[in-house]
Amino acid sequence: MKQYIFGVDLGGTTVKLGLFRADGSLLDKWEIPTRTEDSGANILPDIARSMEEALERRGICRGDVLGAGMGVPGAVLEERFVKPCVNLNGWGGFDVAERFSALCGFSVKVANDANVAALGEMWQGGGRGSSNMVLVTLGTGVGGGVIVEGRLLTGIHGSGGEIGHLKIDPEETAVCGCGKRGCLEQYVSATGIVNQARRFLAQCADPSALRDMEQFTAKDVMDLAKQGDAVALRVAESFGEILGRALAIVSCVCDPEVFVLGGGVSKAGQYLIDLLRPSFLRNAFPATEPTRFGLAMLGNDAGIYGAAKLILDAAG
Amino acid sequence: MKQYIFGVDLGGTTVKLGLFRADGSLLDKWEIPTRTEDSGANILPDIARSMEEALERRGICRGDVLGAGMGVPGAVLEERFVKPCVNLNGWGGFDVAERFSALCGFSVKVANDANVAALGEMWQGGGRGSSNMVLVTLGTGVGGGVIVEGRLLTGIHGSGGEIGHLKIDPEETAVCGCGKRGCLEQYVSATGIVNQARRFLAQCADPSALRDMEQFTAKDVMDLAKQGDAVALRVAESFGEILGRALAIVSCVCDPEVFVLGGGVSKAGQYLIDLLRPSFLRNAFPATEPTRFGLAMLGNDAGIYGAAKLILDAAG
Repeated sequence: MKQYIFGVDLGGTTVKLGLFRADGSLLDKWEIPTRTEDSGANILPDIARSMEEALERRGICRGDVLGAGMGVPGAVLEERFVKPCVNLNGWGGFDVAERFSALCGFSVKVANDANVAALGEMWQGGGRGSSNMVLVTLGTGVGGGVIVEGRLLTGIHGSGGEIGHLKIDPEETAVCGCGKRGCLEQYVSATGIVNQARRFLAQCADPSALRDMEQFTAKDVMDLAKQGDAVALRVAESFGEILGRALAIVSCVCDPEVFVLGGGVSKAGQYLIDLLRPSFLRNAFPATEPTRFGLAMLGNDAGIYGAAKLILDAAG
Repeated sequence: MKQYIFGVDLGGTTVKLGLFRADGSLLDKWEIPTRTEDSGANILPDIARSMEEALERRGICRGDVLGAGMGVPGAVLEERFVKPCVNLNGWGGFDVAERFSALCGFSVKVANDANVAALGEMWQGGGRGSSNMVLVTLGTGVGGGVIVEGRLLTGIHGSGGEIGHLKIDPEETAVCGCGKRGCLEQYVSATGIVNQARRFLAQCADPSALRDMEQFTAKDVMDLAKQGDAVALRVAESFGEILGRALAIVSCVCDPEVFVLGGGVSKAGQYLIDLLRPSFLRNAFPATEPTRFGLAMLGNDAGIYGAAKLILDAAG
């Protein structure tokens, strides 16, 4: 019986790889650099070689490998075709599953990295035990993954779970990374939290430790909010108000059992959930009020776990 | 081979019934009154008797019936359990599939009426040819149904596709039927359109034929907007702005191939799509811009079609 699976998380700087047993246990994980030069011509061969070396190192027979799952930082159609990825200098625009399968000799499934992370958290992390969950990744941007009855909702244009781009404020004048205005990630991503703090500092004269800092991060803002800093607290409350409302909206569409918060901002922990829950309850369709909130548990490993799960799911 | 299916659409005033062949052709449709008195004790027996009579009338053997699907005006869990339905004086709170199956002797599947209508439109109506669609029912309220890869997204609390309750305006003071404030249906349902017109009439002094009408309907407003009436046009533009934005939000969550507009308001036809598309494009995540818009085609029969499809899908 085939008993090993590779999980690959292709990022803009590094590729994370994991070798799993079919029961979900992680045997080994490592990273290699992502070489984006030459239009990314080395990306897939580098990954294939690294997988090959891992098998040799452990004396695992190729025939014992069930397949390789891969998360990529872009939209993916039919678990194969990857649209050009901004974070990889435009790499993509072809059937990655087919090309990578030809290189490594294994069955390959590909999905969006935020979606794959959701699958990982459902399988072995903060969403464990639920097959209807939404992962909200609060990082530099805001990503998401919607899982319905255990399966990723990828969408017809590969944009299922793009909740960072839910329109929150139609009056916004600042432009989002996507080119539109007023998206969720402009307010609740790490970048958004810092920008909101700068706005609030400019708008009021309240004292704040933030005023003495030349540079500050979302973590600084959340830490100061916990300590009662007036401006940081306003930012945190606005974060909760906006994210709670956005998740209430998500619930009206796909009505998950649990929202799992991940990404760097989620390190603020239960405090974030306490911030957003009142707004969620105020804005939620009544039947969805019992929806639970949890925190991601796999950190940077969510991608490799979810990528491996793609293969397990395909194997049925 | 079992070749007949019943589709039942249980409403607050009438029950619509349809007898279908397994290929989807409608052999017969009829209605009976919904008797909500005595806590609705007659509802299921009345339907079972009416189905029985239909079989006798056509000389169809009971053994040739594959099953009966039913749409109900409330939340449904696991295609069986119906939560108490406001429009049926609180009828519900039990396993309708089990009880009705015991009465009629057929296999029974139950789903929410807006969801079932979506399934009907996908199967035989305005969403035909697509297995990823969202139906938006613009009636007295706003209902919805989300279909992903041919299957209804019902949600863990039965609130999947409750897009009438997407939060649109967090500053709204008027209360929605759901008890919260600022929901989509407060602006774009038939009732919402009339309320918006009253607001705009009160806020401005522009001439409008609406001022001379003691009572007017959403249809009056849309008809006058088409003729260029200044206030009606403002209402129509606001309708398009808000609905376009709401559907852009829905696309960020479940990214359908097509939105199908149904319900009484949708009789305004292509005009509605022309109203909402500019706002959709302005607010949409770029990858979802090619999403199509269509009009429902089955009218009041969408429910019986979709109910029959529940049985076909269950039969695999």
